[in-house]
Amino acid sequence: MKHLIDGLIKEKTHFYYIRVHYEDTDIGGIVYHAKYINYIERARTSLIRLIKFPPEKFLKNGLSIVVKSINFDWYSSCTLGDCICVETNILKTRKVSIILRQNIFNFERSKILTKAEVKICFLDTNMKVALIPNEFIKKLKINFA
Amino acid sequence: MKHLIDGLIKEKTHFYYIRVHYEDTDIGGIVYHAKYINYIERARTSLIRLIKFPPEKFLKNGLSIVVKSINFDWYSSCTLGDCICVETNILKTRKVSIILRQNIFNFERSKILTKAEVKICFLDTNMKVALIPNEFIKKLKINFA
Amino acid sequence: MKHLIDGLIKEKTHFYYIRVHYEDTDIGGIVYHAKYINYIERARTSLIRLIKFPPEKFLKNGLSIVVKSINFDWYSSCTLGDCICVETNILKTRKVSIILRQNIFNFERSKILTKAEVKICFLDTNMKVALIPNEFIKKLKINFA
Amino acid sequence: MKHLIDGLIKEKTHFYYIRVHYEDTDIGGIVYHAKYINYIERARTSLIRLIKFPPEKFLKNGLSIVVKSINFDWYSSCTLGDCICVETNILKTRKVSIILRQNIFNFERSKILTKAEVKICFLDTNMKVALIPNEFIKKLKINFA
Repeated sequence: MKHLIDGLIKEKTHFYYIRVHYEDTDIGGIVYHAKYINYIERARTSLIRLIKFPPEKFLKNGLSIVVKSINFDWYSSCTLGDCICVETNILKTRKVSIILRQNIFNFERSKILTKAEVKICFLDTNMKVALIPNEFIKKLKINFA
Repeated sequence: MKHLIDGLIKEKTHFYYIRVHYEDTDIGGIVYHAKYINYIERARTSLIRLIKFPPEKFLKNGLSIVVKSINFDWYSSCTLGDCICVETNILKTRKVSIILRQNIFNFERSKILTKAEVKICFLDTNMKVALIPNEFIKKLKINFA
Repeated sequence: MKHLIDGLIKEKTHFYYIRVHYEDTDIGGIVYHAKYINYIERARTSLIRLIKFPPEKFLKNGLSIVVKSINFDWYSSCTLGDCICVETNILKTRKVSIILRQNIFNFERSKILTKAEVKICFLDTNMKVALIPNEFIKKLKINFA
Repeated sequence: MKHLIDGLIKEKTHFYYIRVHYEDTDIGGIVYHAKYINYIERARTSLIRLIKFPPEKFLKNGLSIVVKSINFDWYSSCTLGDCICVETNILKTRKVSIILRQNIFNFERSKILTKAEVKICFLDTNMKVALIPNEFIKKLKINFA
């Protein structure tokens, strides 16, 4: 499968493909549940990389992105070799937080594996909640609102 | 610090201590958020190990434990070298699911780092939801109800 | 960057591209060293997937692949957002082991990051060393000798 | 098992106990090989923590520890629930590098699981190799030579 390393944005949704690797599975023979939290982070970071706001840029400006909350539901398992797709939508952009919906499907999009709603914030170098840069919010809205 | 490798049960709560390692941190200088999901799984597994229902026993009987849902909130960060404590309570035991509260505190218990409510289920070898073994539920109730 | 999810084989070398993610970095600001061992495993597995011998196929036949030895040298660091390339060559194929050279370069191939020589074996269901399937060796030789 | 969270030093050897967790295993039913590299890092870091040179202290002084090389051999597997022991010896201390032997045994020390020889260096903030602080070398020699 040829694909874009950071996924792609289509119809206000970010699509990000992942091949399930050995390290993602556990003795139960399926993907270890915490790995889904890693998968959706990779998707989020790839999304902001695509719109030219990579996390390195924020870090240089003394801003780090933190996950404030996650509501996660699991529906179906996947295993070694499966190719899966994380679909991300921006649900809300506020002054100090962004809420995203991030669902994982099997490759054919015939089956949902997991659903998640994630709230992220920005922290400054004193670990205090910071205003989200305006330009970044604008760019998100152009692509996802 | 001398401690029990699987934590301990006291006043209907399971306490599990973790030293934050390099591999748990990221470029932001703090623990990578998905690691908290790993931490609380280690605590859950240690809890059932302590009451003599280790996951290996379930696996041998064709049962695997899956995480059906997680509601996770982050309050404060921790970093390399910190010693933290996962506190686990059993909130509900049903026929096919168990709900746990798992909060992480700093070592002195003066600060909460994260809160989580986790719902687990059992799957049989056909990946269908299975009844939770009665003896296991009894043992949980003896220790945590 | 458009690329093949399992990398590609060109001039008897397997090339596999990886974007460095948050989870790969540590508090030092660079990739955590053990992650390179994960990276090269992903490359090996992608290589055998490309030539139609995915690990799932071996597992179904009661064979698992184990890493018998690794000689690893580190030359230069990489960090969040870097795109790197694992280049894999087959050095030797024997009856019960395969030796691979797996070097990691920066994207432009102007700088080597790590070198590794890896010996893999196959184990049967009794965890005994097994003969490597002949067809698999043949396929490796066609592509890499 | 009651134990010290950072292990203990006895007869010029550092002993560090680890319970194998779900996240450490893979679909093969045993510990994923790269995890051994994590395990021995945890042991090394615990060792220097015990002698009061925790990595945080080095980081504050602009020094980071990097792994220059690893020679790793695998002998026997371990799996979920196993309690294993990393034994670390200091083989050589030089001006800019330290060589350690780090072997992993099963809990009863009746079986060796893996052997490793690891060379570490220190980097300054410009990512150049730095002299290893004299006091640190002295402390290592007191405990391990």
